[in-house]
Amino acid sequence: MSQEILSSHRDRIDQLDEKLIRLLAERFEITKAVGTLKAEQGMPAADPEREAQQIERLHKIAKEVGMDPHFSVKVFRLIVDEVIRHHERTAEETSGL
Amino acid sequence: MSQEILSSHRDRIDQLDEKLIRLLAERFEITKAVGTLKAEQGMPAADPEREAQQIERLHKIAKEVGMDPHFSVKVFRLIVDEVIRHHERTAEETSGL
Repeated sequence: MSQEILSSHRDRIDQLDEKLIRLLAERFEITKAVGTLKAEQGMPAADPEREAQQIERLHKIAKEVGMDPHFSVKVFRLIVDEVIRHHERTAEETSGL
Repeated sequence: MSQEILSSHRDRIDQLDEKLIRLLAERFEITKAVGTLKAEQGMPAADPEREAQQIERLHKIAKEVGMDPHFSVKVFRLIVDEVIRHHERTAEETSGL
């Protein structure tokens, strides 16, 4: 019986993980466009002021949904570091044209 | 003009980040139930076999949506490490009753 409950929870987790990956892919599509724009305009890859605003906002949302705000920032940091790596690569490619 | 495009991209990113946090919160709700079940049944907090299956699946989905599979695993690892911490806490609390 408990094995069935576990199995049903795991199916739901798998569905959420697929959604999560698709959502992240959509997010990277947009940050890719941002990266191209920044490279064309000669803007820096990172924007600490914007990041600080995002972190403050995510803290608020995390608290609202009962999640540890520090964990939400850890996830955000991981994503943003990846985005900055993408931006830097785009800038290199753009300047190399 | 490019400032307007940037601003519209950022609005969309903010929307996706809110979705992301809500999705993670929903995921933690389910893993919380899993943690309680595991603690009651005296099952270990971590399950390496299940994790290996999840990673293989996420690799496949990431490739399908054009995302770096290594990055999808980094995100997964961060989430699962947090889940295991929750499970261990639940097991401690349950055994202390």
